[in-house]
Amino acid sequence: MAKVANIHYSVDPWKITENGFDANYSRVGESVFSLGNESIGVRGCFDEGGSVDSLRGAYINGVYDLADIDRSYRGIVEKVHFMIPAADWLDTAISLDSETLDLGRIRYRDFVRELDMRTGTLTRSFIWETVGGKELKLTFIRFLDMVHRERAYQRITLEALNFSGPVEIQSGLSFQAVHEGRKTCFWRRPRCEADKNRIAMQAETLRSEQEVFVGAAIDFKNAEIVSGEKSARLCATVSLKEGEPYSVEKRVVILFDGSKQDTLWESGENALREIERVSFEDAAAAQAAYWNAYWSVSDIVIEPADGNENTVAQEQQGIRFCSFQLAQTYNGGSMRHNIGAKGLTGEAYNGHAFWDTESCCLPFYLFTNPDAAKDLLLFRYHTLPMAKNRAKMLDCRGACYPIATLNGDEACPLWQHASLQLQPSTAVAYGIWHYVRITEDREFLYRYGAEMLVEIARFLESRVALGSRTKQYGFYGVMGPDEFHLMVNNNAYTNYMGMRTLRYAAEALDELREHAPDCYEALCEKTSVTKAEAGRWRSIADNMYLPICKDGLIEQHDGFFDLPHTDVDAIPVTEFPLYAHWSYDRIYRTDMIKQPDVLMMLYLYNSSFSEAVKRRNYDYYQPRTIHESSLSPAIHSILAAELGQMKEAMDLFGFATRLDLDDYNRNTREGLHITSIAMAWANIVYGFAGLRSDGDLLRFAPRLPDRWKTLRFSLTYRGRVIDVQMARDATVFRLSAGEPLAVRVYDGIVTLTERNVSIPANKQS
Amino acid sequence: MAKVANIHYSVDPWKITENGFDANYSRVGESVFSLGNESIGVRGCFDEGGSVDSLRGAYINGVYDLADIDRSYRGIVEKVHFMIPAADWLDTAISLDSETLDLGRIRYRDFVRELDMRTGTLTRSFIWETVGGKELKLTFIRFLDMVHRERAYQRITLEALNFSGPVEIQSGLSFQAVHEGRKTCFWRRPRCEADKNRIAMQAETLRSEQEVFVGAAIDFKNAEIVSGEKSARLCATVSLKEGEPYSVEKRVVILFDGSKQDTLWESGENALREIERVSFEDAAAAQAAYWNAYWSVSDIVIEPADGNENTVAQEQQGIRFCSFQLAQTYNGGSMRHNIGAKGLTGEAYNGHAFWDTESCCLPFYLFTNPDAAKDLLLFRYHTLPMAKNRAKMLDCRGACYPIATLNGDEACPLWQHASLQLQPSTAVAYGIWHYVRITEDREFLYRYGAEMLVEIARFLESRVALGSRTKQYGFYGVMGPDEFHLMVNNNAYTNYMGMRTLRYAAEALDELREHAPDCYEALCEKTSVTKAEAGRWRSIADNMYLPICKDGLIEQHDGFFDLPHTDVDAIPVTEFPLYAHWSYDRIYRTDMIKQPDVLMMLYLYNSSFSEAVKRRNYDYYQPRTIHESSLSPAIHSILAAELGQMKEAMDLFGFATRLDLDDYNRNTREGLHITSIAMAWANIVYGFAGLRSDGDLLRFAPRLPDRWKTLRFSLTYRGRVIDVQMARDATVFRLSAGEPLAVRVYDGIVTLTERNVSIPANKQS
Repeated sequence: MAKVANIHYSVDPWKITENGFDANYSRVGESVFSLGNESIGVRGCFDEGGSVDSLRGAYINGVYDLADIDRSYRGIVEKVHFMIPAADWLDTAISLDSETLDLGRIRYRDFVRELDMRTGTLTRSFIWETVGGKELKLTFIRFLDMVHRERAYQRITLEALNFSGPVEIQSGLSFQAVHEGRKTCFWRRPRCEADKNRIAMQAETLRSEQEVFVGAAIDFKNAEIVSGEKSARLCATVSLKEGEPYSVEKRVVILFDGSKQDTLWESGENALREIERVSFEDAAAAQAAYWNAYWSVSDIVIEPADGNENTVAQEQQGIRFCSFQLAQTYNGGSMRHNIGAKGLTGEAYNGHAFWDTESCCLPFYLFTNPDAAKDLLLFRYHTLPMAKNRAKMLDCRGACYPIATLNGDEACPLWQHASLQLQPSTAVAYGIWHYVRITEDREFLYRYGAEMLVEIARFLESRVALGSRTKQYGFYGVMGPDEFHLMVNNNAYTNYMGMRTLRYAAEALDELREHAPDCYEALCEKTSVTKAEAGRWRSIADNMYLPICKDGLIEQHDGFFDLPHTDVDAIPVTEFPLYAHWSYDRIYRTDMIKQPDVLMMLYLYNSSFSEAVKRRNYDYYQPRTIHESSLSPAIHSILAAELGQMKEAMDLFGFATRLDLDDYNRNTREGLHITSIAMAWANIVYGFAGLRSDGDLLRFAPRLPDRWKTLRFSLTYRGRVIDVQMARDATVFRLSAGEPLAVRVYDGIVTLTERNVSIPANKQS
Repeated sequence: MAKVANIHYSVDPWKITENGFDANYSRVGESVFSLGNESIGVRGCFDEGGSVDSLRGAYINGVYDLADIDRSYRGIVEKVHFMIPAADWLDTAISLDSETLDLGRIRYRDFVRELDMRTGTLTRSFIWETVGGKELKLTFIRFLDMVHRERAYQRITLEALNFSGPVEIQSGLSFQAVHEGRKTCFWRRPRCEADKNRIAMQAETLRSEQEVFVGAAIDFKNAEIVSGEKSARLCATVSLKEGEPYSVEKRVVILFDGSKQDTLWESGENALREIERVSFEDAAAAQAAYWNAYWSVSDIVIEPADGNENTVAQEQQGIRFCSFQLAQTYNGGSMRHNIGAKGLTGEAYNGHAFWDTESCCLPFYLFTNPDAAKDLLLFRYHTLPMAKNRAKMLDCRGACYPIATLNGDEACPLWQHASLQLQPSTAVAYGIWHYVRITEDREFLYRYGAEMLVEIARFLESRVALGSRTKQYGFYGVMGPDEFHLMVNNNAYTNYMGMRTLRYAAEALDELREHAPDCYEALCEKTSVTKAEAGRWRSIADNMYLPICKDGLIEQHDGFFDLPHTDVDAIPVTEFPLYAHWSYDRIYRTDMIKQPDVLMMLYLYNSSFSEAVKRRNYDYYQPRTIHESSLSPAIHSILAAELGQMKEAMDLFGFATRLDLDDYNRNTREGLHITSIAMAWANIVYGFAGLRSDGDLLRFAPRLPDRWKTLRFSLTYRGRVIDVQMARDATVFRLSAGEPLAVRVYDGIVTLTERNVSIPANKQS
């Protein structure tokens, strides 16, 4: 599995810079230069479009349309939803003499595109050389407001370098975007009002009947209006004077409220009037302030050990890019949003969120933005009715959370995933458990968490069965995290997570009864849950089958140890990804696994297993894992670091921070791997700082990679900010905010205060 | 599983008669009254169509069109083919005064529809009572020529009962038929030539580009031609005289040669000229002679024990109907034809043949029409290139035969069946083995069989794997005959059949080398097979894993014995069929099985297993079998009879002979269960006569059901005709043709000659 970097961007601690435009790399650039603010997102495509290869996409979180699936059998999803490209608010056209700006056709020089992660702005500039010898410098800036999330800004600056004369500029809005995969424009019934300085448009999706408003204030002087069926543009002719830059600014509002009420146009008009009162400069300054504040609590700083300057500079840039994109994709504030596997950066995966959210992304938010972590869980609460409906479709009770969703409904058309994977449901339970443990937000547990736990436990109870031979409970006919084995029985991960979930649900009810009797009464009323029911869950948990050998080795599922062996290292690089090169079923019948399964459980409930168990299973499963999920290497790296196998930990960490920047998987063109990005953060914090958050106290076990001199980061935790500075010989802990806190470091307990505490590195491991 | 008869037709030894027309039962009648001659088939729909519920379908064996599948992964079928309704040659319209004949709208009486199995003709008659009080008796007769299979005949007789006057008759041909499931007419580019006595038409399918010619000679006197885009009719006005019957005869030819050559129209014209020289009467007489000859060798005659006259009369009619429909569907003569699960009687199952052909239908032909059995195997030889291509798609070598096909290509869009079921390939090998064993046709083995065996063995070798724990070979990730368990490992059936196939392939090569060295050389040249390769097959066979317990119980697949138990008898009747009432995956995770799996292997290789093993496994698996395949009960019934469990054998035999006549599964409307019909024959001959054809000698072990007084049938075997007459106390065997023959009867060896040999019934079992 030799994945190779495609180094294309300059290395810089805070910027991603592309010097010169490579048309073959156009879509990768569009993904890398994506901007987002959770509510809206836009790929880094050229404002003026043109003939260059492009996946033009401006997306809105929660906006999708629907398609029917040719369903063969009951319980198989009948209808899927998918994110669609929404209003194109960058729409621009520029003409000079008889030429139209199109980087695929014109001559130009000095192309620079730059994402500044300190300000959240994307800038592009170049000099256009016309056939007639004129030179026009163009600079495009755009950003999405991180606070007023309906707002977006674009500024285009033109400077005639060797002439004076007219240039034509058109700036507009359109609902003509075509979904590339489905070759359809999903927008209809446009309403448009335009005058010389502004355009307001509203349109509706074809089947989901969602309405979106987009408005733009464009500071032209004497513009003409040109309207199309689903588009409108303001057209102006500007007289440039040599050496005097001219700018046109476009302030945009994009509204989607998800309601079916008739007030959207009015809200849109109001929002447009408000943004007209905000100057571009003020907005840009506010944006920079936002990101400054963000980095002050979320930054990870790596200093190189001697001789590793280049590699570490790449890692430093990479981890900041990860952190930046995570914050752009999701930062909380809406129960309607989740974290799509590709965020708002492309059509691939349909904008769907997977169980990655709770299993991989949640820790990043728990320790940098706990309110956002809560909102992620509230998304699951908000979509509980859909999960209950899905359980019914599967002839089960309670709530079955979807493997792929945008709106809460199951949207995976592959029954083997949608019907057999129970991990989305147990991951929600784990997320609740983890969130409540870290934040001590018992109010959340009482008002929301407990109800979800009840319904998830009911689902598990209705899905579990008694083995005829084991005489114990287990889940039969499932697909565990390892998606290379389906319809398996007694998958250890599923059984174990099911056991923990059932027990936690029962415990949560006990807690409510004791500490929040009103909430308990309300819950009983709402769900009809009883003590007897919780007793059954406990009794199933107590009698759950867990196939663990004497030496601690856990069989991934019944019969796994007999599966024919595949030598993972013997598979030629040219055969990856396997799904594209091997027949579907061939992938599925050996001991080769796609991603951690037993190891996933040892990662999630890390402190519940001895080091010996972790070592035995790591040694067994690591050589059998092909890592076809981009989430996979980080989990292995974290466990390898824990086991002191630092070389393997670093090999597996390898491209984690630069998966997309260097296009390791050769599919960044489709969008960014947002959930993998979250695991890059975890790989550092859980892997090399050895953070563990599932035990009684937070625990750190720092293990600094050889090529790093220091590693610094901060964690938010129960009203405190924990600053961690790892160096070769010791790690210094300090609280920059909050009350003293007892944590474990290696095997001792240390109380952290506002003063530095230095703990010598544990040289053993 | 209480299936209930829907008794609708009069009981008669040779006829199926419907007195009075029930519009709600219209489609069932269309299926039951289907006619076929292997090459063409037509449902029993009304010649004049009308507003009654109808699936109008005239089919041609081998005529299909294509559709793309939205394929997700490699090895999954991308394109499927499906039988389509072809030329409508029954097309008729009759008007009297201002009324048009339409049984959904007119008044009529004395409706009788009758299929005569001695003549292979379908007759329908009724008296039309017009609003004006006229009474017109109509009689429609049709049949399909069993010898000249391109020929079909229709005669309509009109008799004015209480008036004289004109009636308008139109008779035509059309290519307008719409595939009901796909809502598409798959015919294009019609060519049509008509004159006052004949119509000739040719058209082409949309994507498969198959051409079909249909021509009709219609004995009108002064007809006008009315042409449509894809249809033409001759229209005549006939003056009826009271009491004098008038008949119009239509002689039809339907040609499809599968070639892409431009000679079809010419051949069609020739065929039309030939049929014009044949009188309806002569054709009808030849048809009756054909069926008379057929029954003289293929009939099964049952006499009732006292008090069982009614039940047995139904069984007698039922088994004749089965035999009749089997002969209509397939009787050999073309390598291009196979036996569709629904024959040529409806769109369901797309006209596809399954592995039922070799596992269930072949014995009927082996013992009644061995040439037809050979042709069935030649179909597999003819489609060997497609099977090799399919193996490649699956990253395997050799030949993988399709689970569902009409032309040899895999046409099942469900990957879990198409990719995981190896039984079509092992069934072809079994079919070759069985055919050669029964017929001693070594020429077939040398010229065709061996090559198929080599390619099937190669496929199995490339698909088998070494278990990491068993250290033996097995097939991993398969679906055995029991389609309720997929992606299982070491399915006993698959492993055992694989073992037998590999060994037989190696033995066949030995035999060729020794007895037909030229054929051996040619085969080596063609396939590059070597002795070493055959050695590997033998060595895999010798080391195949077979999970058999000490007490003889065989585990269906790894882990089966631990599966949670489902009490099959506790499932309410209202939940059948399960696929329509249970979620897809719910069906798949317990010890409930769909159809015999271990028992299938004990049936096919019956003499290789001891009675104790059969008893142990029958007792274990029978209560776990839900029989959702209509082939299933007969296999169980045969084994039950062998084990002396006659009550259960009769319960399971139950509706075998009348599955479609009494619409037990409530889906006869979609077409007849042709392959189940074959198992009804086997159920009697293998079950109650105890025939076994897999040992060294033929064996009989007669066990007469209590409600039967005698059972008589004949078998064709190696140039002999064996007449068997079972009675309560003894069975009489006699050869009506051929040399003396040693057979086993119960546990003794008996030599059969032209003289009666009476063997006392074995009262023990």
